[in-house]
Amino acid sequence: MSVRSDLLSELRSALPDATIWGRDELAVRDPGFDGRNFGAAALVRPADVGSVSALVRFCLERGIPLVPQGGRTGLAGGAATVSGQIICDLGAMNRVEEIDRLGRVAIVQAGTPLAVLQEAAAVHGLDPGIDLASRGSCTIGGMISTNAGGIMAFRNGTMRHRLLGLEAVLPDGRVFSDLTRVLKTSAGYDLKHLFVGAEGTLGIVTRAVLRLEPLGGASATALIGTNDAASAQRVVSHLLAMPGANLRAAEIMWRDFAVAMAGMLGLDSGRLPLGSPCLLALELGAATVEEATSALEEGLSSIWEEAGILDGLVAASMEQARTIWRLREETEQIERMHSHPPSFDVSVPAAAIDGYVARITDGLLAIDKGYAPYVFGHLADGNLHISVNTDNPSPERYRAIEDVLYTGLGEIGGSFSAEHGVGIDKRSAYERYADPVKQDLARAIKACLDRKWVLNPGKIVTPV
Amino acid sequence: MSVRSDLLSELRSALPDATIWGRDELAVRDPGFDGRNFGAAALVRPADVGSVSALVRFCLERGIPLVPQGGRTGLAGGAATVSGQIICDLGAMNRVEEIDRLGRVAIVQAGTPLAVLQEAAAVHGLDPGIDLASRGSCTIGGMISTNAGGIMAFRNGTMRHRLLGLEAVLPDGRVFSDLTRVLKTSAGYDLKHLFVGAEGTLGIVTRAVLRLEPLGGASATALIGTNDAASAQRVVSHLLAMPGANLRAAEIMWRDFAVAMAGMLGLDSGRLPLGSPCLLALELGAATVEEATSALEEGLSSIWEEAGILDGLVAASMEQARTIWRLREETEQIERMHSHPPSFDVSVPAAAIDGYVARITDGLLAIDKGYAPYVFGHLADGNLHISVNTDNPSPERYRAIEDVLYTGLGEIGGSFSAEHGVGIDKRSAYERYADPVKQDLARAIKACLDRKWVLNPGKIVTPV
Repeated sequence: MSVRSDLLSELRSALPDATIWGRDELAVRDPGFDGRNFGAAALVRPADVGSVSALVRFCLERGIPLVPQGGRTGLAGGAATVSGQIICDLGAMNRVEEIDRLGRVAIVQAGTPLAVLQEAAAVHGLDPGIDLASRGSCTIGGMISTNAGGIMAFRNGTMRHRLLGLEAVLPDGRVFSDLTRVLKTSAGYDLKHLFVGAEGTLGIVTRAVLRLEPLGGASATALIGTNDAASAQRVVSHLLAMPGANLRAAEIMWRDFAVAMAGMLGLDSGRLPLGSPCLLALELGAATVEEATSALEEGLSSIWEEAGILDGLVAASMEQARTIWRLREETEQIERMHSHPPSFDVSVPAAAIDGYVARITDGLLAIDKGYAPYVFGHLADGNLHISVNTDNPSPERYRAIEDVLYTGLGEIGGSFSAEHGVGIDKRSAYERYADPVKQDLARAIKACLDRKWVLNPGKIVTPV
Repeated sequence: MSVRSDLLSELRSALPDATIWGRDELAVRDPGFDGRNFGAAALVRPADVGSVSALVRFCLERGIPLVPQGGRTGLAGGAATVSGQIICDLGAMNRVEEIDRLGRVAIVQAGTPLAVLQEAAAVHGLDPGIDLASRGSCTIGGMISTNAGGIMAFRNGTMRHRLLGLEAVLPDGRVFSDLTRVLKTSAGYDLKHLFVGAEGTLGIVTRAVLRLEPLGGASATALIGTNDAASAQRVVSHLLAMPGANLRAAEIMWRDFAVAMAGMLGLDSGRLPLGSPCLLALELGAATVEEATSALEEGLSSIWEEAGILDGLVAASMEQARTIWRLREETEQIERMHSHPPSFDVSVPAAAIDGYVARITDGLLAIDKGYAPYVFGHLADGNLHISVNTDNPSPERYRAIEDVLYTGLGEIGGSFSAEHGVGIDKRSAYERYADPVKQDLARAIKACLDRKWVLNPGKIVTPV
């Protein structure tokens, strides 16, 4: 349907407490990570769950598609909008309502940025146990809706595993309220899990109960070189099994990525072990830096030969540790080397990683003899981020690259989208690579909850 | 519908590879934990997923209700059957198909007993990370279907958190196959979670991919006395936050339970700190018993005053550790003291536990001045098991007891069923205490997947 000119005034009278922006205001605001986010006719920022519910009913009655937005840091177009749509911005519902120290639980409104929750929890010696580079902007609701993971997922799980309770407005305007604060509940279908990773297509997340972890103490960082991922994984397995050791990060980088990063960042590569085919950044926690350092040194030396470590460096200073982390984390450098390089986010089972990287390297070469992948990621859970060294490829080329990266991945137990979601950008891949029975079931569930396809239509699933 | 006399021969020709038992054979077999399990007209034991699918289609065409069964150790009647129904027994699909050491992952058929998986994983220095007293009988499929938890859930999560991939036969006979082996996947609705805790009403779980943990090393055990749960929780919080400490169990017992158990087991209570209102059994892991013991002693002494510990004992021998664990684990003693004592399984948020126990103690007294609760459970996740010291109460009495235990529990973020499920025994409580919107949504999902209500009808949800 076309949006009528009196839409804004209708919205203002229906939602007197909400902030409402029209197209002119959207045009001059920052749309976040994705220029397509602000294509909508209007943005409504409700003050509370009742107001979200009223907005959903408003849209349902008029058949206007409604698109929820959190921090607008999504990487798959899950929050992209077009002119006939309305945005439901959760930004005004941004309070940490409670930190329950004894229960190690937080009650948080969906629009709360992750960094705000991290700070509130830290006051009580606690931490959300999940961390992303976009922590200052990304919101708890958005993280639930994409099932965000990050660096610590191998220890603490993804958002799904952090979630104890959830409140969401359903596509019919009713409020689903399951603010459970406990880990164990087997009291009927645990339907809050439907909304995790659903990118706002089944309901609008408005509030969450999250588990918290004790805040980490001191830590030590190392960078080691190996011949392959299998060798690096033997190191990780060893450190995970070491009694009392507290592995906090195990980030892998293939040489092409690490060398390119070191060059862009102007790091003194002579002081880093960048000569090996694979680099593994490790972080181990302990009571003091000294204890962490000696545990890390001991752990590495006891597996050195068996795992085939080629080279290594345990950071001797904060500065050195920071350099190791810059190498891994400031990945926007890759974006600067190319214009819109195609970037991917896959999960690959541990034993298949080396074969996968070899296969995609060959496959990319077969498309174009200049193509090569930059590969890095979270080794302990097999989540690889991959960019291809080319500028803004044609749709045909992009699809050929996708086919190289995604073919056979599901069959070996991997995933073509590890933590970024499907949105609209991976819709085509979803249709080609997700199991047909799963797709059919997803469509049936969407139609069952959202009969008029009002909530974030066109994302993940579409009608037949 | 009534079951026709030629049902068995029809089943035998439709499923030539399956083992099939009729009523006569069921009558002389062990029905497991629940005498009602073998009320069905027939039991079919399919050889593989194709055979399960054929059985589902067989039942669907004839409108015969089909009830999946695993180890028949369920405590809520989720596998109970009546004469018009057929049992789908997963007992022939009982193989550990693969242990992926590097990926720390197991591929397991649904009918595999937990103990079999534990043994297969231990060969590789790994462990499922979940343990229940019924380990020898309970199956992986049943544990998924009830979202089983156990003693280590506070560390490693419940079955939902252990699950990476799932294969299930849908109510229309199609196979939902999502054998993902990786932790991170955000590739569309993660529908495997629908089947977790659904007690076989939405599909029959046939295979699973589970995370494994490094096998624990040595450990030390302690039993301490405190005035209340809050005090015990301060000890737990301290041990959880202690760098390098590896808390493996934190089991609480209220005095009435512990004294009754010690009496039944003939333990020398003079050698146990049974004088305190609350007892907390702790287990801490480390590389050696000596390290674990000294870490536990150090951890306890550093929080002793602040937490208000009254009394305590760190086990000086294996024998002493075993005595502490017998006190907590051999709970069938309570069943021996009474005939069918009403028993419950709730989750209570940490900060509310003392108030909850005081409230239900008063509430039970108000029903009958002889009533008192035996309370014990998993302190670190708030899961309390409660038995009332009475024999087989009338339905009215039972309901009054339920109301004392369940009223207000959802409002404070607890759960009226922590890890035993709903089945048929908690159906009435579900209707009274589960959120109406959640119940409505559950019914819609059930009807969407199982239009003819063929799979395990009458459990958890029923048609309006």
